[in-house]
Parts: sequence; C-alpha cells; structure tokens
Amino acid sequence: MQRSQVRKRGLYVGRFQPFHKGHLEAVKWILTQVAEAVIVVGSAQYSHTPENPFEAGERLTMIRKALDEVGIPRERCEVLPVPDIHTHGVWVEHIVSYVPRFDVVFANDSLTKRLFHEDGRFPVKPIPFYDREKFNATEIRKRIVQGGGWVELLPRTVVDYILEIDGVQRIQDLAKSDKVP
Amino acid sequence: MQRSQVRKRGLYVGRFQPFHKGHLEAVKWILTQVAEAVIVVGSAQYSHTPENPFEAGERLTMIRKALDEVGIPRERCEVLPVPDIHTHGVWVEHIVSYVPRFDVVFANDSLTKRLFHEDGRFPVKPIPFYDREKFNATEIRKRIVQGGGWVELLPRTVVDYILEIDGVQRIQDLAKSDKVP
Amino acid sequence: MQRSQVRKRGLYVGRFQPFHKGHLEAVKWILTQVAEAVIVVGSAQYSHTPENPFEAGERLTMIRKALDEVGIPRERCEVLPVPDIHTHGVWVEHIVSYVPRFDVVFANDSLTKRLFHEDGRFPVKPIPFYDREKFNATEIRKRIVQGGGWVELLPRTVVDYILEIDGVQRIQDLAKSDKVP
Amino acid sequence: MQRSQVRKRGLYVGRFQPFHKGHLEAVKWILTQVAEAVIVVGSAQYSHTPENPFEAGERLTMIRKALDEVGIPRERCEVLPVPDIHTHGVWVEHIVSYVPRFDVVFANDSLTKRLFHEDGRFPVKPIPFYDREKFNATEIRKRIVQGGGWVELLPRTVVDYILEIDGVQRIQDLAKSDKVP
Amino acid sequence: MQRSQVRKRGLYVGRFQPFHKGHLEAVKWILTQVAEAVIVVGSAQYSHTPENPFEAGERLTMIRKALDEVGIPRERCEVLPVPDIHTHGVWVEHIVSYVPRFDVVFANDSLTKRLFHEDGRFPVKPIPFYDREKFNATEIRKRIVQGGGWVELLPRTVVDYILEIDGVQRIQDLAKSDKVP
Amino acid sequence: MQRSQVRKRGLYVGRFQPFHKGHLEAVKWILTQVAEAVIVVGSAQYSHTPENPFEAGERLTMIRKALDEVGIPRERCEVLPVPDIHTHGVWVEHIVSYVPRFDVVFANDSLTKRLFHEDGRFPVKPIPFYDREKFNATEIRKRIVQGGGWVELLPRTVVDYILEIDGVQRIQDLAKSDKVP
Repeated sequence: MQRSQVRKRGLYVGRFQPFHKGHLEAVKWILTQVAEAVIVVGSAQYSHTPENPFEAGERLTMIRKALDEVGIPRERCEVLPVPDIHTHGVWVEHIVSYVPRFDVVFANDSLTKRLFHEDGRFPVKPIPFYDREKFNATEIRKRIVQGGGWVELLPRTVVDYILEIDGVQRIQDLAKSDKVP
Repeated sequence: MQRSQVRKRGLYVGRFQPFHKGHLEAVKWILTQVAEAVIVVGSAQYSHTPENPFEAGERLTMIRKALDEVGIPRERCEVLPVPDIHTHGVWVEHIVSYVPRFDVVFANDSLTKRLFHEDGRFPVKPIPFYDREKFNATEIRKRIVQGGGWVELLPRTVVDYILEIDGVQRIQDLAKSDKVP
Repeated sequence: MQRSQVRKRGLYVGRFQPFHKGHLEAVKWILTQVAEAVIVVGSAQYSHTPENPFEAGERLTMIRKALDEVGIPRERCEVLPVPDIHTHGVWVEHIVSYVPRFDVVFANDSLTKRLFHEDGRFPVKPIPFYDREKFNATEIRKRIVQGGGWVELLPRTVVDYILEIDGVQRIQDLAKSDKVP
Repeated sequence: MQRSQVRKRGLYVGRFQPFHKGHLEAVKWILTQVAEAVIVVGSAQYSHTPENPFEAGERLTMIRKALDEVGIPRERCEVLPVPDIHTHGVWVEHIVSYVPRFDVVFANDSLTKRLFHEDGRFPVKPIPFYDREKFNATEIRKRIVQGGGWVELLPRTVVDYILEIDGVQRIQDLAKSDKVP
Repeated sequence: MQRSQVRKRGLYVGRFQPFHKGHLEAVKWILTQVAEAVIVVGSAQYSHTPENPFEAGERLTMIRKALDEVGIPRERCEVLPVPDIHTHGVWVEHIVSYVPRFDVVFANDSLTKRLFHEDGRFPVKPIPFYDREKFNATEIRKRIVQGGGWVELLPRTVVDYILEIDGVQRIQDLAKSDKVP
Repeated sequence: MQRSQVRKRGLYVGRFQPFHKGHLEAVKWILTQVAEAVIVVGSAQYSHTPENPFEAGERLTMIRKALDEVGIPRERCEVLPVPDIHTHGVWVEHIVSYVPRFDVVFANDSLTKRLFHEDGRFPVKPIPFYDREKFNATEIRKRIVQGGGWVELLPRTVVDYILEIDGVQRIQDLAKSDKVP
C-alpha cells in the first residue's frame, strides 16, 4: 500500500500500429508526470489488416526496443496487450480488469477521454502533441505503402525490427488485397 | 390463449439513436392497428459510437418518457433491448426468442422486410412515413454534432433527458474521435 | 429528474427458469420498498437446456402473466431481457448499460451481492426468503422431469402458459438428451 | 427443382468423436430411406478436449475414409463442418443456413428431435440403433484412454487414420490434463 | 498414407458471392494441377448483406450445381463451409483445423498469399485469371442491383438457382436498406 | 537479431489463481535455463468465479510483487495477460500472436505439452515440481474457502495483496453462490 501511495501510475492506451517517435515522446512526458506508466496495446487480437498490420506481440516488441533505445528502465513501464471488445459501455471496466491499479489516465482522443470522464473514477490528462501531422500512425502506414519517407518517423530500433520481420512487404500486401480471408 | 387471440401484438424494431417524433408517430399509428406494440431496441450492446451514441438503457428511458408524454399507457407497449448478432440468416429467430409472441411486423426497411418475408411466419406491413427527410436519426445526430436545429425533431421529454445525461457533448466528442478504443 | 428523485427504482436479476411463487413474492416485497422494479431476465440468449429450458421471450411472458394475476400494475415493473457475457469483471457495467437508472439492488445470491459490492455505486439489500426449499427453480425443474408436484409452486397463469407451450414435454426431452446440438 | 423433388435429402447431425461403426450403420440405413445424406460434423470449432479430441477436418477425413471403405459413392453424401453457437433457440436456423436444402431429419437424440419438432418445418425420423451400448463415442473414448478394446468398434480405415495422426496418444494426454490452456 | 502421397490436394478459398464462371475456370485449372480440390466457402456465417447476400448452404449448392454442369466428378472436389473469425493472426490455423489435409494453396489475393507465406507450411501458387474485369463477384452483384448484364457471367445452373431462390430480389432489397437489423 | 540469438526466451503459461510459491519456484528455475521468461496470465478475461477468482490485472500485480520480493529483475520477466479463446486447434498460434518471440516452452500440463508438440515449432521442457500436492492453486482456493492453512503457501507479498483487495471474502462469497449472474 505504502508504495502505491507514493509511486503514481499513469495509463496510456494505444494501438501502436506502429509505435513511432510521437508515441515515444508521449511516454517520456508521461514519465515526468508519474513514477510508472501502464502502456496498453489495444486491439490486441487484430493483425494483418491495413489498419492493424502488426500482431500484439510484435507491437510489444517494438515498444520494448524503443524504450530500451532511449534508456527508459523496465520497472517504469508495464506494456500489456488488451483485446478489443467493441462494447464501449463496458470498455473502461474491461481495461481496468486487465491492468494493475493506476491513478490517472493520459489521453488526447476524445472517445477515450469521454469514456473515462463518464466513468468518473480517474482524472484524465492531455498529452502535449509532438508534431502530430508527421508523427501519426495512419500517415506512417500510408508512407510505407507508398514506399518512402517513413524511416525517420520511428525510433531506429523499431525501423530495424519492422525490416527484420518483413513488415514493409506485409503492409504493402495488405494494401493490395481486396478481400478479407 | 383467449386474450392473445383477441389482442393482436405488433413488432416494431429500431435502434432509436435517438428516439424522435417520427418514431413516436410510428408507434401511435401502430397502436391504431394492433392492441399492443413490442418495441425492440436493437443493437442493444452498442453505445458511444457515432452511429450508436446511446446505451440501450438510455434508449429505453427515452422511449418510456416519450410514450408517457403523449399518454400511451404502459400496458400497450413492451419496450425490450435485444443485442445484435450479425448473422442475418438467424436474425428473425433471434428476435423471436427474445420477445413475447407477436402477430404482425411493422417495418419500412427493406432488409427487415426481406428477412421476415423469407421467414414466412409473420405478415409484414409498412408504416406511413412522417416527413422522413426531417425525422431521421442520422440527420438528427448530424445536427447535434453541428450544434443546432434538432430540438424540435424530438419529443420534449427526450430532449430534456438528452440534456440531462450530457448527450449533446457525448455525440460531439464521438464525432471528433479518430480512433476506437 | 424530479420524478426519479421521488420514485425509487430497485433492480432484481434472475434467470426465472421458470418464474415461480417465490419470485413473485420477492417482486411484491420489493414493491413495498421502492416505487418501481426493474426485473432483469438474465441469460437471455439461452434456452432449451436442462438449466435454461425457456426462451427469454417465454420468461418475459410468464412474468407479465404472473404480475397481471396478482394485479401489479405495469407501470411499476419494467421486465427486460439481458444476455450473459461470462466476464464477471464487467458484469455490473453490462447490466447498467441495458437498463434504466436504478437506485438499489435487491439480491440474495452471494455472487450478485459481491459484484455490486465491489462496484460500490449501489446499495445492495437482501430479499426475505419465501420457503426457499420449496420455491426453488432447480427443484421445480427436477419435479417437472419426474412428472409431479410442481403445479402448486407456480402462479396459476404461469402453469397454464407452460402447458400451452408444451413446456413439460420440452423439459423432459432436454433431461433425456445426452448431447448438445 | 425437378431433381430435388425426386431425390430426397436427409440431414444427419453428430459430433463424430470419433466416427464409429454405429455411425456408419446409421448412414447406410439413411441411404435406404433417401437418395442423399447431408452429414453435419457439429461442434466444428472444438478439438483437443476430452469430449472433442479431433478437429473438424480430421473428422471429415474419418467419415470420407469410412464411406469409401464400404463403397458409398461420394455423390450420395455431403459431409459438412458446422460450428456450435450455444444458443439453442436459433440452432435449427443456424444449421439450415450452413447446408443445402434437405427434406427430412434423422435423429435419435431427444434435444435434436425437440428443436426440429418445435421448428416444425421438417419431419424427424428415428434411426434404428446398432448395439448402442458398444457403439458409442463416449465409451470408445474411455476405452482409448484405458488402452484397449476399441479397435473393433471403428471402421478399419478410421482406426488406421487415428493411429496415423497419433490420436491414441492425444486422447490419453487430454485425459491426463487438469487444466484448459 | 500411400494415397495422400500420390493424390495431391489443393486448397482454394473464396466467399463465392455468387459462384461465377471465373471461379469455375479456376477450379477446372486447379484440377489440372492436383488430383483433388478442397473448396472453402468462407464467411460462412454471413448472409443477407450487400457483400454477402447468399447463405453458406446456398453457395455450396451453387458450387455443386456448377461442378455437375461441367461434369467434374464429386470425388475430386470437397466443398466446405468455414466461418470467419476476424483474427488474421490465427486464420491459417483456423482453416487447417476445418479441412482435410492439403498440399498446396491456390490463391491470387495478396492477403491470403501473405498469411500462408508467413505460416510457411504450404506452397502458394497463383491461379491464371479468366478475364477478371468481367468475372468478378463485386461487379456481378452491382449488375444484379442495376438489373441486367449478369446472366452470362454465371454458369447456367447457378443462374437458374439464383432465380429459383428469389436471389435477384434479395440482392436488390439489400441494396436499398439503410440499416442493419 | 544479435541479442535474441544470445538471450534465449522461455514461455510459461498459467492461470495463477493465485500465484503461489510453486509458481515462483518454477519461474526461478526457468531463469536458470533461459535469459528471459515470458509469463502468460491465461484466461485473462475471467474473474469472480470459483476457479478464476482474480482479475488479470490482480494476477499481474501478484506476480510482480512476488518477483520483486525475491529480487528477480524486471528485465528478465515479461508478464502478459492473454484471454482464452476455447478453440484449442488455434491456441498455440493465438498465444504466439500475443507475445514476443520465444525459443522454448516450459510446461508440465499434458494438454499444453500436446498442443505445442503437435505445432512442432518449439521445444517443450518439463519444470521440476516443487511439492505439488501442497503448492497447488486448486488446493489453495479450497483452503481459502475453508478459512485456514493457505498463508504459508504463497509469497508473503501475495498474501498481503490478497488481504488488501479483500480476496479471502471474495473467494468465500463465490463458493457460496449457486448461480452465475
């Protein structure tokens, strides 16, 4: 008890498709506000679609590599996969049941903010944007499909990992498909 | 048995996001055709999305308030939440299993009509439209996002209830979100 | 708002397989405590199993008939089907999203009490038992399988309805089956 | 149309865990009653449990081998996997949506018979038992766990196939497990 | 074992909404490459939507009729319904569990090819296109909605079957619907 | 790449209801075999049942506290929630998609061993038992229900945490319930 009273934990939810420098800056900033971050990798069951190309395990790996790259110690970040349930009315409770206790939510998205606001148990704080036009996962996936201009938007170790798992070709293949298997 | 033979029941299915004056006119007209209406609040598990902003319980409340407002007695309307199952081939049977026996279906939507037509057990009757261009839930949600011109399209008690539960701000927040949590 | 402040609503959750005199006594007692009861017919998607022989719509019908039989006016009882979700960690929130606002929960079951207790938003009150050994749905289904001694345990209109829908034979057939289709 | 009027099709549903000589006798008998059999391999999504050790594809393979072994021509038997949905109220409609039109249902199980009886669209006929005490999948799985006395209860090609896919060891492993992964 | 070594089986996955001459040519070509085809009718649980108008059983029937029309013997084609699971990360394993063993996958779609490529167990081969602009299910459904020019794109028996089950009117009704029940 | 070649990762799957000294000994032993352990908290969506009393987040917390108690550094253990899917045929692939790459599986349960054995991609190694009769979650939950003799079977910090979250009373309440909400 003692410890959780002194060490505040902040929740940060995203899909991280992929995890980019804007996400990394957000985590760094969150860690100036609280002692520990709980990073939820949402939509964990989905992968191999244009909007969700990477598996949860792959996204966890990207995040771990990026945190190591900038020297954030493991004990300050819990990174956890949580599947979507598609019923927003119970979404906050669903997240709460999958993660350790937290004290504050960090979010910019208006839906995430609204759901936590209606729940009423946790304060919700905005995250300063880090050049959102550029550091934006939708934009990054589009550039990967088009074949250029995305490498500088991701941490170097994440770029290496995406190349290692043949992620560029995967995203391009997904973009070409006109059917869902 | 005696009673169900003399008192006909009509089924009316909708999402009621939100319940507006067109819906209320439909219920009033249905009650000129049958003794009792079974109003199914469909997609009951969904809420907090642009197309389904309100929870099933909130929609039930809207309908109850609107029926009270115009003096329709409770014993003439059963209002029941039913979740979506997304497999249309069993949808009629799914609805049938959630509600009391009914004798006739009132519907204008071509999919609802087709599914009941293929099932073949119930007559399907159209509902006279009540200025459909205006009294249309999609249009009403759009106006709520834009901030005006919707109040006169809903029963007064439904407007009050939406304001009471902060529904305008919710719908505007949902419209601004670019992600699904 | 005014109205919900003066008219308290109580929640009562059950599977009602079938709705018996013990349930009816519980509803009558609840209506001495609050102005309105919200009766949730749980496990709404299940039917035709030994533990859940009746469909949600059939159970709603039983309850409506029993309430009419003893003269409880419709405006005092909302009877609503709610499906199971099997994830107890979000169960309270799931129920809340399906029903109108309520002020107090009436429950004897230790799991229901615990889930609402952990949620913390609603007071939970016990319901006086009405000869629980006899008025017990498991016992009643057993007697129906064995062929006797159950008629006096149910409201007369519920007995008539079960006979009308061939429910005795259904329960006996389900008991004989050694497979699940 | 002409053809379906003259060539009657019969539906036969089972889990076939595994497909034994009793099942094969049933198919042979059904083919004396109708021109074609539609054999539904139910619970298709389940495998690797004590009650459902074999995958749907493995069970389809067993059935095909057994039919070939006794010379039943392929055009007389459609063998189709269908997953469980666990909501018996829509089960008949679910089966109907997965298979070609059929004219009659062959079933001994009281639940299957009841569900089709309540649906009312198809005649349901019993299948003569073929020494049910012995030719019984539950008994056969028990004997496989215990290590003997099961070989003569299955068609020879099914025995060979189970040995080929290491099915004996699988069933024994499943029986030893005290957890579900 | 002997047999599966000499008789190669090829997998071919589609939704077949509806089964057209391009599909039929693909099956004929596949049967020049392998002894047997396993034709998976995907998205088996869906029907009565603009993209998935026909039930799995109806699509199985179309395929059987088309194969009979051109004289492909039943023992060379297994036609099997498989439902969607929407989690692509386990999709290959899901298909594998529903069908008999196969040796090679025939596919043109980039997603299907990618998923099997990442799995790594089966060679994936392209299918020569048969005038893809014309013989394309999306185009065919569009023409059915518009009311003409589709008959020559389907095998004659499939056209007859679609007319027999009132499929043209169904597709036109689905196109008119603005809601999902 | 370099790093994953030199630092081997081992997978360890359990429900950890609750995490006891036997589990902790297993983790300590695994870390003598590999550089890093990926601990999967299975059945993550379930809680508040007699077999699964604790939420995934609570179980993650127990494990973190126990690892800290014995001084296992965070960078050697990834602890991840993964929900059940109930289709064992795709279970290995499901796990693989949720977690970072691993090299070896540590398991004693015959089902887990069989599923990974049939998959064939990962070596599976047994874990030396640590007085299994005593250090057994089923036994521990039974003792908690009965009210004694369990404290010494869990790490001290886990005992404290269970008391802090009122876990003893929860387990006793769940044991008394005769219904599932």
